[in-house]
Amino acid sequence: MIKTIVYNSVGNTVDYIDQTLLPEKEVVASAVRIEEIAEAILHLRVRGAPAIGIAGAYGIYLAIDKFSGTEDTFFDYLDERSSYLNATRPTAVNLSWAIKRTKKVVLASFTDAEPGKRVESAKQAALREANAILLEDIEMCRKIGAYGAQFVKDGDSWLTHCNAGAFATGGYGTALGVFRAAFEAGRKFHVYVDETRPLLQGARLTAWEMLEEKIPATLICDNMAASLMASGKIQGIVVGADRITKEGYVANKIGTYSIAVLAKYHKVPFYVAAPVSTFDLTISKGSEIVIEERKPEEIIYAGKTLLAPKNMKVYNPAFDVTPPELITAIITNAGVINQPFSENIKKI
Amino acid sequence: MIKTIVYNSVGNTVDYIDQTLLPEKEVVASAVRIEEIAEAILHLRVRGAPAIGIAGAYGIYLAIDKFSGTEDTFFDYLDERSSYLNATRPTAVNLSWAIKRTKKVVLASFTDAEPGKRVESAKQAALREANAILLEDIEMCRKIGAYGAQFVKDGDSWLTHCNAGAFATGGYGTALGVFRAAFEAGRKFHVYVDETRPLLQGARLTAWEMLEEKIPATLICDNMAASLMASGKIQGIVVGADRITKEGYVANKIGTYSIAVLAKYHKVPFYVAAPVSTFDLTISKGSEIVIEERKPEEIIYAGKTLLAPKNMKVYNPAFDVTPPELITAIITNAGVINQPFSENIKKI
Repeated sequence: MIKTIVYNSVGNTVDYIDQTLLPEKEVVASAVRIEEIAEAILHLRVRGAPAIGIAGAYGIYLAIDKFSGTEDTFFDYLDERSSYLNATRPTAVNLSWAIKRTKKVVLASFTDAEPGKRVESAKQAALREANAILLEDIEMCRKIGAYGAQFVKDGDSWLTHCNAGAFATGGYGTALGVFRAAFEAGRKFHVYVDETRPLLQGARLTAWEMLEEKIPATLICDNMAASLMASGKIQGIVVGADRITKEGYVANKIGTYSIAVLAKYHKVPFYVAAPVSTFDLTISKGSEIVIEERKPEEIIYAGKTLLAPKNMKVYNPAFDVTPPELITAIITNAGVINQPFSENIKKI
Repeated sequence: MIKTIVYNSVGNTVDYIDQTLLPEKEVVASAVRIEEIAEAILHLRVRGAPAIGIAGAYGIYLAIDKFSGTEDTFFDYLDERSSYLNATRPTAVNLSWAIKRTKKVVLASFTDAEPGKRVESAKQAALREANAILLEDIEMCRKIGAYGAQFVKDGDSWLTHCNAGAFATGGYGTALGVFRAAFEAGRKFHVYVDETRPLLQGARLTAWEMLEEKIPATLICDNMAASLMASGKIQGIVVGADRITKEGYVANKIGTYSIAVLAKYHKVPFYVAAPVSTFDLTISKGSEIVIEERKPEEIIYAGKTLLAPKNMKVYNPAFDVTPPELITAIITNAGVINQPFSENIKKI
């Protein structure tokens, strides 16, 4: 399995693959201090909501591990360090959730322990909790994979977009978890990987994961999927999700909606794979989701290579919204949600 | 107007914009000898079927201009130089067509002239013919533009893919000729430019042309067009064509078919703009068109920047085929061809 982020008990370090160096080279970095975790999150060395949450929990452990004060200063220290870490990606819901969850057990453990043993007790609690968050994530992705693998048949070719994979999670992935589970079950199939402009998560990360797992795969540009579908070369599509509304509108990486429309036209089943935590039941329609616009530079440059005139106006939305009528089913860790989503999402 | 390639009578040079240096810098190169024209064609400094043809004709002129032999060696010299130039892109129909056409008038002019004045006469004939080929191309594109401009309304936003523009022709373009004509007619509209992976002709060339002409335009990644259509932001689409069968199947840059399907789904009119010389009446169905597969490196690298693992398997088709049922109309220099194409293409 790809070790996106893992605790290394030999060196007492938190080891992670530096995703900014892929695909040039695979470098496993070792964080000894919380500051290194913060830097890794800030510079997208670790990315993807679940992976960031796991990193956050381990960051709290490393902070406590380096605590050298007296027990009466521990609470202030923990508060300050938590806020510091949280500020690296203030809008990442998973990061604040994981930090809060870890902090809660740390404080309970600290308080319950005898004086003099409190910091050590808190430290062990933080490590246990971070390990638990990581394992729960892998378990959750394995369940998604198990539910999704049934759709992948021998001889199939499937398409995926972006990286809903090991690199975004604890190491198994959601959409790519479906492929991993089907592959582990001995299914013979092939994966087409959309490169996913502009940030190329498909080319950089999903392609890398498929090579690493030895799952037969071919990289294409996003605009090539339609002609593959037309020639009958795609039997199914599975993508991840950033947010799913209670009526089943799916916000995901830009380009997802495009594939969903093409899938409908070519009668190819289109699946979304995501944990139940992805559902946002406070909103119904896709129009309620605000689409983040990102910097023009992401489209105008690739590394240092200029791809377009510097002064060209650019539209760079990070996400699009796929309406429920284009989605065959949603594969979650609590089972497969079929149509009609507005009724069946409630039940999960 | 963009001077893709033009004869410069002051310096007696053939001046062209070196397209390989765009968008980093706009460099006008001056060819003095046929060898420089050959090098420019070979290294795609001049590209696009009509533009290559024009360059070929001027190449013959430059060859004759540098001829220093006696009249009895002229035929052999012309044959040898023509074959040499033709070999730079042996499959480019337009190049061999333009060389043949120029050679024919050169030989006639040589033969008709008095002894002692034959080479000079042939040289002038070559220059006249090359100038004529260039002007005819511009005139042809202007007609396409005039026929197409009627579809572009005030307040519209249009989408285009790849570069069917000045850079592919004598300086006016086919699909972009429609925009030029509408703009010259004072129409207020906006253009979305697909970057067009993998070779980014949209980002590099079409974006540059729109900036140069001051036509309001925005660059997008190919996978963003669908969500723009869904939000009602695209009123029309126009693309070029590499080849059109007698039933109206259109081979064009990869990604064209994808847009055509999305256009159909969102009820956006989809036009193809091309000269009548693009029709290949020897074939009927799209399946008869052989799709060229290009090198994986085009997808794996952008300049020197590595975008995907080096050993990743890649599928890189240069073209796709759009069936007639997805095309609203074909805009040619002989008028607009409406459905049903199988009947109306014959008439033109």
